Amino acid sequence: MYDELKKRVYEANMLLPKHGLVTFTWGNASEIDRKAGVVAIKPSGVEYDKLKPEHIVVLDLSTGDIVDGKLNPSSDTPTHLELYKRFPNIGGVVHTHSAHGTAWAQAGRDLPPYGTTHADYFYGSIPCTRPLTKSEVEEAYELNTGRVIAETFENKEIDPDAVPGVLVSNHAPFSWGTDAKNAVHNAVVLEEVAKMAFMCEIINPEIPVMPAYVLDKHYNRKHGKNAYYGQGGANG
Amino acid sequence: MYDELKKRVYEANMLLPKHGLVTFTWGNASEIDRKAGVVAIKPSGVEYDKLKPEHIVVLDLSTGDIVDGKLNPSSDTPTHLELYKRFPNIGGVVHTHSAHGTAWAQAGRDLPPYGTTHADYFYGSIPCTRPLTKSEVEEAYELNTGRVIAETFENKEIDPDAVPGVLVSNHAPFSWGTDAKNAVHNAVVLEEVAKMAFMCEIINPEIPVMPAYVLDKHYNRKHGKNAYYGQGGANG
Amino acid sequence: MYDELKKRVYEANMLLPKHGLVTFTWGNASEIDRKAGVVAIKPSGVEYDKLKPEHIVVLDLSTGDIVDGKLNPSSDTPTHLELYKRFPNIGGVVHTHSAHGTAWAQAGRDLPPYGTTHADYFYGSIPCTRPLTKSEVEEAYELNTGRVIAETFENKEIDPDAVPGVLVSNHAPFSWGTDAKNAVHNAVVLEEVAKMAFMCEIINPEIPVMPAYVLDKHYNRKHGKNAYYGQGGANG
Amino acid sequence: MYDELKKRVYEANMLLPKHGLVTFTWGNASEIDRKAGVVAIKPSGVEYDKLKPEHIVVLDLSTGDIVDGKLNPSSDTPTHLELYKRFPNIGGVVHTHSAHGTAWAQAGRDLPPYGTTHADYFYGSIPCTRPLTKSEVEEAYELNTGRVIAETFENKEIDPDAVPGVLVSNHAPFSWGTDAKNAVHNAVVLEEVAKMAFMCEIINPEIPVMPAYVLDKHYNRKHGKNAYYGQGGANG
Repeated sequence: MYDELKKRVYEANMLLPKHGLVTFTWGNASEIDRKAGVVAIKPSGVEYDKLKPEHIVVLDLSTGDIVDGKLNPSSDTPTHLELYKRFPNIGGVVHTHSAHGTAWAQAGRDLPPYGTTHADYFYGSIPCTRPLTKSEVEEAYELNTGRVIAETFENKEIDPDAVPGVLVSNHAPFSWGTDAKNAVHNAVVLEEVAKMAFMCEIINPEIPVMPAYVLDKHYNRKHGKNAYYGQGGANG
Repeated sequence: MYDELKKRVYEANMLLPKHGLVTFTWGNASEIDRKAGVVAIKPSGVEYDKLKPEHIVVLDLSTGDIVDGKLNPSSDTPTHLELYKRFPNIGGVVHTHSAHGTAWAQAGRDLPPYGTTHADYFYGSIPCTRPLTKSEVEEAYELNTGRVIAETFENKEIDPDAVPGVLVSNHAPFSWGTDAKNAVHNAVVLEEVAKMAFMCEIINPEIPVMPAYVLDKHYNRKHGKNAYYGQGGANG
Repeated sequence: MYDELKKRVYEANMLLPKHGLVTFTWGNASEIDRKAGVVAIKPSGVEYDKLKPEHIVVLDLSTGDIVDGKLNPSSDTPTHLELYKRFPNIGGVVHTHSAHGTAWAQAGRDLPPYGTTHADYFYGSIPCTRPLTKSEVEEAYELNTGRVIAETFENKEIDPDAVPGVLVSNHAPFSWGTDAKNAVHNAVVLEEVAKMAFMCEIINPEIPVMPAYVLDKHYNRKHGKNAYYGQGGANG
Repeated sequence: MYDELKKRVYEANMLLPKHGLVTFTWGNASEIDRKAGVVAIKPSGVEYDKLKPEHIVVLDLSTGDIVDGKLNPSSDTPTHLELYKRFPNIGGVVHTHSAHGTAWAQAGRDLPPYGTTHADYFYGSIPCTRPLTKSEVEEAYELNTGRVIAETFENKEIDPDAVPGVLVSNHAPFSWGTDAKNAVHNAVVLEEVAKMAFMCEIINPEIPVMPAYVLDKHYNRKHGKNAYYGQGGANG
């Protein structure tokens, strides 16, 4: 019944080691079928070279109950579910411990936009959440992680569709997108701009963020209604 | 009619992922046939593992009109065309977002010559352009990118044939050469010397640039009329 | 007689180059059979692409005498044996000169816990030993290396089962685990968190270590009696 | 006549790209047959994936004349020949522009011994030469490079057999060894310790070099007359 969805989620998960974003089992990708009200996600702790499409777990979005699959879902599942509930346009979510993105998350800093590579995908800084409180960690930790991510976007008035990623303080990045594959794409970009920004600040510690008009131009060149990048844009 | 040119441009583009210079579709290579007055370039947004020689787009140098090919040319095409017009000896142009070169471009700094690896290919600093103005970005952005590159070389009195690359502020590197393959070669070198200079400044923050006479020697050992490197030089 | 043990130790050793942890022969893995009172370890100086299961050397834990095998055991064998004697629950030991872990060991600093990647495997800082004294180096050097590691855990009151790794000052990391393969796993994690912490401190030189309650949560999520990560945990 | 020598030199050269030490043709390995008074070296500018054993050029040590081979020898040949003349025990020489070693050479600093990885192969700092003077560069540049390397070891009273490598200021590393393959081995080690020392100084800017007694122990463990590492040592 969910074979197509599980296949897509399986393929998105397999892209994570291909792009060098995961060590061991430190990552997971999910996708939502909003009509059916279900989310498909990687099982917990299964190694990528043993993962098969039939291992993917399908859950009810509202209740979190398993509707298809025999394995435990990723321990990060409550975070994924909360993001699908709070960010109503997103179709896929990815979590990794990719090295550079994780270093920024551990450093507790927003990742500033220093160039057009960033602006092509993220319309402004990729925010870092506040640290979770002791009680948020001790009870319903993974759910609270999702809540703090959503709170960050609400408090800073950031549109999650324009900034499809976040750094969870002391933890690592989450990214999202139109579907699981697109969320993986954004995870790759986040890691790459995290690496570039790391070096950029060393090369020029006084560098300001990029001008807002360059950020506008590049983001809209790919994503705005007059987008003209690629073969399918307004100029296509 | 343009089969040979398209094949060469295809092969040059395929060298970019081979050398680790591009993530996804973030790069493009072109080559000019100055007799025919045409430029062949990668189509926009096509993934490298799906790219074929017949996808390469051929454009009229003067008008920018497509003379062969069914796909949209790279969105960076106006930059390539402007470089071919302003730098009359160059035969190929490459654009990438290679990590170290991009970090220097984002940092807004000229890349200084610290050693013979640099001097073997670039006869002095690889300049970083000024940031484009708001109006330059909002209108004819890619064309203005080419104009600002040419302006940089004119204002600083740098010979583009002796310094075959540039860092576009807040953006990334462009390189060029005698043909598309040679421009790729220079893109690889730019990335490598950007990495070495990054580390060099950390190891010794007080390091001055290399002596001018070493720069002279190495550049001319490979490029001067008495070049004696390789099998085809004056000493061959 | 020891064929199964030797095969497991061979396979654990072969994981070291696969994970990029060793250059040439700079690494070794061992495993203990506590019932039989023997330790199996890589032979000294044998290149990984020539290593075979029958090359693995089996030694008596108490005497260090070879009980099976024709080659010299790793020159680090006395360190391994001492660790098995002093840390009674461990089943495997690994030594590498992995680049980032070694840089921290050379820098003589404890590796602080900055994020959940660290906390998932190491319940606190990975300690760096004091430098060995002149006499400790000149006589029974490898044995004294093991003694100084054990001393470090005793003096700092660190539980070696909760912090399965150490940085030997001026030298490189050792890690351990429930068996040889698990010790390799911890060696990979140590290298990864060493890389992340290196970058984290550059990105934010003022960053404090992670909150203790996050460290508790993550370590216990994987290792405590209520562990719920993976398929075999209490919630499985 | 020189088929065996040429084959060994060919194989040593092919190890350079395998170990990630060269980009394009930026590296070369040679070996001497001291009885025959000849040196075999890579031809200039030939790409590694096109190199064949028969391309290797054999030269007379005293005169530098080609005694076998049809191609130009490496442009660095006079440096190699000078090193064979000045360092009478060495059997192979390697030159690369490996990234970390080159960064140290460009930074103009000696590479300090911070740990046992260094001490296992280099018995003290790997020295950086003084910059060549203008006249040394303009006339007989490559020969003078060899002379300045030898001068560095003489002035600082360093034994080239105990410190088998050097950083040429503003340029890159040279290494040597008992034969070409061993010189490649030392080139790999030099790059690895250059990377570790780079990170080590960032992690702890106040770190002193390693204690002399650890340096002694490790160097002699592998190289002294009582060496006991590997299968062929005194304890073998």
